[in-house]
Amino acid sequence: MYKLNSIIENQKINKLLSDFKRSPHQLNKPHESDAEIIKLNDGLLAITTDSISEEILTGLYDDPYIIGWMIVTINISDIAAVGALPIGILISEIIPQDFGQEKIRELQKGISDACIMYKTFLLGGDTNEGESLVLTGTAIGIIQNKKIMSRLGCKSGDILYSSGKLGDGNAYAISKLISETNSFTKYKPLARIKEGRTISKYASCCMDTSDGLIATLDQLMRLNNAGFELNNNWQNVIDDDAIEYSKNLNLPPWILFAGQHGEFELIFTIPTEFKNAFLKETLKNELSPIELGRVISDREVKIPLYKELISINTAFIRNLPIEANGDINHYLKMLLEYDYQIKHEPSLKFTSP
Amino acid sequence: MYKLNSIIENQKINKLLSDFKRSPHQLNKPHESDAEIIKLNDGLLAITTDSISEEILTGLYDDPYIIGWMIVTINISDIAAVGALPIGILISEIIPQDFGQEKIRELQKGISDACIMYKTFLLGGDTNEGESLVLTGTAIGIIQNKKIMSRLGCKSGDILYSSGKLGDGNAYAISKLISETNSFTKYKPLARIKEGRTISKYASCCMDTSDGLIATLDQLMRLNNAGFELNNNWQNVIDDDAIEYSKNLNLPPWILFAGQHGEFELIFTIPTEFKNAFLKETLKNELSPIELGRVISDREVKIPLYKELISINTAFIRNLPIEANGDINHYLKMLLEYDYQIKHEPSLKFTSP
Repeated sequence: MYKLNSIIENQKINKLLSDFKRSPHQLNKPHESDAEIIKLNDGLLAITTDSISEEILTGLYDDPYIIGWMIVTINISDIAAVGALPIGILISEIIPQDFGQEKIRELQKGISDACIMYKTFLLGGDTNEGESLVLTGTAIGIIQNKKIMSRLGCKSGDILYSSGKLGDGNAYAISKLISETNSFTKYKPLARIKEGRTISKYASCCMDTSDGLIATLDQLMRLNNAGFELNNNWQNVIDDDAIEYSKNLNLPPWILFAGQHGEFELIFTIPTEFKNAFLKETLKNELSPIELGRVISDREVKIPLYKELISINTAFIRNLPIEANGDINHYLKMLLEYDYQIKHEPSLKFTSP
Repeated sequence: MYKLNSIIENQKINKLLSDFKRSPHQLNKPHESDAEIIKLNDGLLAITTDSISEEILTGLYDDPYIIGWMIVTINISDIAAVGALPIGILISEIIPQDFGQEKIRELQKGISDACIMYKTFLLGGDTNEGESLVLTGTAIGIIQNKKIMSRLGCKSGDILYSSGKLGDGNAYAISKLISETNSFTKYKPLARIKEGRTISKYASCCMDTSDGLIATLDQLMRLNNAGFELNNNWQNVIDDDAIEYSKNLNLPPWILFAGQHGEFELIFTIPTEFKNAFLKETLKNELSPIELGRVISDREVKIPLYKELISINTAFIRNLPIEANGDINHYLKMLLEYDYQIKHEPSLKFTSP
């Protein structure tokens, strides 16, 4: 596949997997799908695992209720992104000795409320002591469609959509990790199960924005050997409060796509011939997908910015958190320098490796 | 159920689960099964999650290869204990920044070797940074029998078996955590998949010895409203090196049943009418189950010790690690005081709450 290894995160995963044979029951290869797709008897199982640890250590998540809500949401979102119907979740909790009963109750309440919201169930779990709080969820779902929806399959000309408004994940992250004066507390994302099931009937590919929009488009670009061009009115996809928040901090709004704390919307592509049928069904199901742009044959992510169509250096943006080695102020400084460059010297384009 | 709550571990789990509704797809209640049993379309899925964290913090596991081997083994063992055929495992790895590439390679080698041993596959995973190493596995398997094997179902008169020799888990734990002079390094347990699949055709209940024999029998006693009496020759079930090791340290051999670091054998019961058919099939399949004793109607765990039939206070033994609050020397001292009591004042019997 086209230079998946230019992204440090992909390199790390490929290195960890290098000695492993794939199961003959597994229908997806590494990176190709938000959830693993497993053939069982005559059915298809979607299964995924995701932990919350760094987010707690950095202070991004400090409310036990939100941590409980998120461990369900991040896993169910991956089930939604393959169009599956969630069956339930197993959760392993590593709890420090001094965590306290009230905080445990809040954590469990967050998990329970999220299960109720998603009409899904806690199927099992494990508890263990540890130095710091770590939660690991594993969600399972059933794929009822014949056609499997994964990250693979979009073609030049397909229309690019988001299942909803973006940017609140990154506004929240800036508020928690950087800004000392302005706070943005409105963050309680929803896994898009109903959306995923409708989308899966029409979409050529789909991925959730757990790592923000640019990381999502970059990964889809590498997997599909195709690129994306956003519409001129891309600001319409940004959450109103998030855009207001970025303006108060003098941050360019597109930065809300670049940060890697996502909003768990689904980014997907619809072949033009299915557009009408898709929109008809979303109307019937009261869904509100937002048209973001289109798939292009160039392997680039292009955004109309500062009166030019800028090819964003998505590899630079994705690798920046690791390059910045956890220094979030340095990370933001580098992002803003990049913004300055595309604003004032757009001819000096980076190109994505 | 009969006083499951006398065991602090069960209390904790029940408290965590108190707000949760059960899935209509789930066929087992809490505590009743080593793996969760989920009805999917026309098949049955076994799924389980288990973490390794405390074992690393206490120094019980310090070899990355063994940690990798164990995260697969402890999860596949739960799949084996319900008689399922493993399909694969997902593993989330929380890795400290300073862990080092060589250790990561060893960890992955342990995971890979265990997958090969169990003819199973790594299906997916997640990596995250954290303060200390935490691994969480989630294994899935398919149940092909019509009859579901769980921890429930044994009746007075059934014969009690172990799938193999016991005691090396606790000998290893003593060696790692207590003894400064004698070492016992022979610990690389095997999940008993082939055994589980044969056992599931005949057994009235089954559970793995992940927490040692006495904890296993205590939990089965509480779930089944029945007890267990070990045969006079119970020492035959102890691993030769483990018994030698306990003798060198002047520890009574039955202590190897009491510690809570198990050997991942399967403890199961066979109704007398199936004994011959079961033994015939184990011979054919080259399995070596060991007859341990029998199910009795009294809700007690009785072991012939010091020329008496002693009813062991299994609740005291199971709760002791938590009561000792991590002080392993105090824990062993209390266990040895209990041994002194049953040896010298057997009339002063504890009774299990």
